[in-house]
Amino acid sequence: MQYETIFHEIYQELKSLEDTGHVADYIPELAHVNPDQFGVHLSTINGESYAFGDAEKRFSIQSIAKVFAFVLAYSKIKSDIWKRMDLEPAGTPFNSLVQLEHDKGVPRNPFINAGAIVVCDILVSGFPSPKEHVLSFTRRLSNSFTIDYNTKVAQSERETGFRNFALVNLMKSFGNIRNDINEVMDLYFHICSIEMSCRELSESFLFLANNGVIPYSGERILSPSRTKRTNALMQTCGFYDEAGQFTFKVGLPGKSGVGGGIVAVHPEKYSIAVWSPRLNKKGNSYKGMLFLEEFTTKTKLSIF
Amino acid sequence: MQYETIFHEIYQELKSLEDTGHVADYIPELAHVNPDQFGVHLSTINGESYAFGDAEKRFSIQSIAKVFAFVLAYSKIKSDIWKRMDLEPAGTPFNSLVQLEHDKGVPRNPFINAGAIVVCDILVSGFPSPKEHVLSFTRRLSNSFTIDYNTKVAQSERETGFRNFALVNLMKSFGNIRNDINEVMDLYFHICSIEMSCRELSESFLFLANNGVIPYSGERILSPSRTKRTNALMQTCGFYDEAGQFTFKVGLPGKSGVGGGIVAVHPEKYSIAVWSPRLNKKGNSYKGMLFLEEFTTKTKLSIF
Amino acid sequence: MQYETIFHEIYQELKSLEDTGHVADYIPELAHVNPDQFGVHLSTINGESYAFGDAEKRFSIQSIAKVFAFVLAYSKIKSDIWKRMDLEPAGTPFNSLVQLEHDKGVPRNPFINAGAIVVCDILVSGFPSPKEHVLSFTRRLSNSFTIDYNTKVAQSERETGFRNFALVNLMKSFGNIRNDINEVMDLYFHICSIEMSCRELSESFLFLANNGVIPYSGERILSPSRTKRTNALMQTCGFYDEAGQFTFKVGLPGKSGVGGGIVAVHPEKYSIAVWSPRLNKKGNSYKGMLFLEEFTTKTKLSIF
Amino acid sequence: MQYETIFHEIYQELKSLEDTGHVADYIPELAHVNPDQFGVHLSTINGESYAFGDAEKRFSIQSIAKVFAFVLAYSKIKSDIWKRMDLEPAGTPFNSLVQLEHDKGVPRNPFINAGAIVVCDILVSGFPSPKEHVLSFTRRLSNSFTIDYNTKVAQSERETGFRNFALVNLMKSFGNIRNDINEVMDLYFHICSIEMSCRELSESFLFLANNGVIPYSGERILSPSRTKRTNALMQTCGFYDEAGQFTFKVGLPGKSGVGGGIVAVHPEKYSIAVWSPRLNKKGNSYKGMLFLEEFTTKTKLSIF
Repeated sequence: MQYETIFHEIYQELKSLEDTGHVADYIPELAHVNPDQFGVHLSTINGESYAFGDAEKRFSIQSIAKVFAFVLAYSKIKSDIWKRMDLEPAGTPFNSLVQLEHDKGVPRNPFINAGAIVVCDILVSGFPSPKEHVLSFTRRLSNSFTIDYNTKVAQSERETGFRNFALVNLMKSFGNIRNDINEVMDLYFHICSIEMSCRELSESFLFLANNGVIPYSGERILSPSRTKRTNALMQTCGFYDEAGQFTFKVGLPGKSGVGGGIVAVHPEKYSIAVWSPRLNKKGNSYKGMLFLEEFTTKTKLSIF
Repeated sequence: MQYETIFHEIYQELKSLEDTGHVADYIPELAHVNPDQFGVHLSTINGESYAFGDAEKRFSIQSIAKVFAFVLAYSKIKSDIWKRMDLEPAGTPFNSLVQLEHDKGVPRNPFINAGAIVVCDILVSGFPSPKEHVLSFTRRLSNSFTIDYNTKVAQSERETGFRNFALVNLMKSFGNIRNDINEVMDLYFHICSIEMSCRELSESFLFLANNGVIPYSGERILSPSRTKRTNALMQTCGFYDEAGQFTFKVGLPGKSGVGGGIVAVHPEKYSIAVWSPRLNKKGNSYKGMLFLEEFTTKTKLSIF
Repeated sequence: MQYETIFHEIYQELKSLEDTGHVADYIPELAHVNPDQFGVHLSTINGESYAFGDAEKRFSIQSIAKVFAFVLAYSKIKSDIWKRMDLEPAGTPFNSLVQLEHDKGVPRNPFINAGAIVVCDILVSGFPSPKEHVLSFTRRLSNSFTIDYNTKVAQSERETGFRNFALVNLMKSFGNIRNDINEVMDLYFHICSIEMSCRELSESFLFLANNGVIPYSGERILSPSRTKRTNALMQTCGFYDEAGQFTFKVGLPGKSGVGGGIVAVHPEKYSIAVWSPRLNKKGNSYKGMLFLEEFTTKTKLSIF
Repeated sequence: MQYETIFHEIYQELKSLEDTGHVADYIPELAHVNPDQFGVHLSTINGESYAFGDAEKRFSIQSIAKVFAFVLAYSKIKSDIWKRMDLEPAGTPFNSLVQLEHDKGVPRNPFINAGAIVVCDILVSGFPSPKEHVLSFTRRLSNSFTIDYNTKVAQSERETGFRNFALVNLMKSFGNIRNDINEVMDLYFHICSIEMSCRELSESFLFLANNGVIPYSGERILSPSRTKRTNALMQTCGFYDEAGQFTFKVGLPGKSGVGGGIVAVHPEKYSIAVWSPRLNKKGNSYKGMLFLEEFTTKTKLSIF
């Protein structure tokens, strides 16, 4: 099949590149991942799917899960969400406190750490068992019911997440966190610990290419308008300080995680997930970024 | 015709809105514009065109002209352009010096003032008569050979543009301006003084919807890949501190100017220019933004 | 006596001033203080003492206690103290995180909150019972053995001190906090809760006017050189964002607290403590600052 | 004589130190100075004077001249000086634009570049021939009538002073510069080009140790109160980002220049000037700072 041929071609090209970049090493669970693994999976809204490499192997999706948390809050909870966070690109490294202090505790968008923590606060206010709720939502999106938190990862994140505790305390000092800090952070660290494969990831994002409806089940998650807006938000804010680069070079809305995963969506067409654990200096998958750049160049399938 | 009906409908809806916002008043030429004027023009790549209101009236396109300057530099001059500016959203108000100082004189992108000044420096290095070159390029893009600089506006900008002189001096101190400051700024202030109508604007941007080729003349301006990248850049950086908002609500790449104009592009389909002089707090046309939000909502023609 | 006459005169002048400023109200214990109380006490190194108003009434000395904590760490613990904090004025509001992030977790000086928290971390490392140690040190300095922590104040500070928790977490993320955060903050909040009278305060600071020796007991606390350096540090860093103002107008090294107290030292001569609970916009006692300005003007006893 | 013995002793100690630091090299006139020159001169208010090394050799006093400009403006011109600049330490590198933008064009104090430029603007408003006025004022202070501008230095400064032009344009954009930029900067660059010897410098600052009166002539320059305030201002703001260090280690008010000169004042006693061209990382004379630290340690003559 054509797509798989392209996957293989690009993989061969990238193979010859020097293995620059490093895996995230701030917690042992990420530091010990085999850095040479590589997987990609593409799912179309017509039900086709194309895979390459370690596409079935689960990894820590980390910040990609912020999209699930945001969509859940955006779709199910009536709240003043856009008073509590903005929807502009951050323009500074992803966990900077400067912007947050300048903006009196209002994060720039829901996909930086501070914004995702506010989303968690909204989920804690909105659901009696938010951890269970996020998990079952993610399972429904991906049609894969064995997806789970890795509690060891969540625990490691908590033990080393001093900067995230600085963020939540700062926002609390401005009144932008309404629940107990420990409860909010427990949800946050669990969400970041979800493990999925490239196949599960691409399938779980397919509703964003399909006007808000899960193709497998027909369940509507977001209205068409909110679906477009979620994609737009990923376009401008999905890659920390590298959102402009990704938009410029790949031209698709997407989201990356420090575990080396990237998902991107081509509205009305497909979603694609790629995984390669070594990160570039901005904290995004080094080869994952290059892979998607080559992929949209070869297929001429950017949205622009 | 359908589009004109939609234009009329949205215009009626916006008419009832309170006339919030103010025209730019930092130079007399902008301050004295009749704020109630309103025009819109849409051009398709198939040669259709739809107009409403003051679509033939010329106004000061201001920062929209930064796109012409950038495309000219990007297409015609071999230079280390991406070493001299980045392509990330600014994340701070559009003429902030903080970012520029932090990044040692390298602007965030070519559409903020500092970036456009570096583009002007590249044009001054690349062409013997850069002012004439930019003008003839703009005329060719729009197929309208009476388009011109307003030298009175250019003069007023120069007399009040202390902050822009601060920017260029700061970049010069970091070695990122290679020509005489006065020559660079003369080009910059002239470019910002170009006057065009909505029709001329939408037609001049049509090559960006047409894979880089001017439909009227068949002239290729940019390769397909560079065209997509220019659109991507407008998406993340075309609206100063409101790029996320515009992407979220309108969902098209575009560029605004402090004269009240906005142009947006739907790749493979059309370009559209709207003009309404009153600005919101971020310096973008108040009704222009709302008009385009309504337009892409009604036509469901966002790229996302 | 002359000094008491001057105290009375200045008090009369200030009385007629409008009662501008507000008492600190972030915790109930400070909010409920009678704002009209006023006391002053001056102690000379020759054993004379002059009092006026509520000079014997204890109040929450708050940040003034940071001097005791610093002197204890500076005098008794061998540590790399100047690698873990700087000794430059902050130049930004007193609890700003911006500077701290920019400087990778190294506070500007030991008298801003972040710096005092690092001092507490040093004390926790250096003493088995740091709370008891600070208290007995303070009692010895002031020759007043009933001085104590107000545990209710400490508790209130802890419950509302989210910004301080943001600071300590941020510094911990940079590796500049070595002990458990809760233990460090428990010491910090207790130190800020110490209650003393103007008399006790002026007597406890007298060793800084006396080359480092407590006059009452003859105990050497600091070498002459370190005494001078501590005074110098109070001069440039003792008044948050108003250190320049205080130096300019009063011309003595000193330290203020949000409870409305200020202590100042005239080397080789005296120490003076003043208390008036209403604060100016910078968080220093409104009338306390004016009082000391008038006092050094009338007595011509500035160090400059 | 005792002082000269101490000078000699300290000089010998410093001689063995590695010649760390570099002379300022941003203009040829400074780059070509022999870096091994060293001079010191102390003048007492009783008319004694003590010299060592190259104390009679003139050098570029650079920023030290900001004190003359400030004192002239402060003493002779009725103006809203403290509305146009603050008197707080800068807390950031000496020519940072960040603070200036944050504070809407109001410099932190008169001794950073931006503040000195505002002082020049005040002098241009206040005197018909400000350049002549500053020069004759400096000559009177030092009792040395051959002191002059080095117009070649002034010219070089102007040709490379892009950052200073950025500062003045930024302040002009905020309305804090009232005269023509070129006229203001011509004065500024001339003032920085004044050349004096250590002897002339120490004598010109002696009025600040003498309650505001020039000892040689009996002319009152400043009231006692304003003299103290000027000294206080030098204490907190005289050494850019190293004011805290200098206060801590030397304990005297003073001012440094990028030509390698430092002047310090001991109120009621003496003034001292030292010159050594190699600068530390903060832009202050490397050996000059160490010399004064040793000098006040040996003589125990700090003000604290």
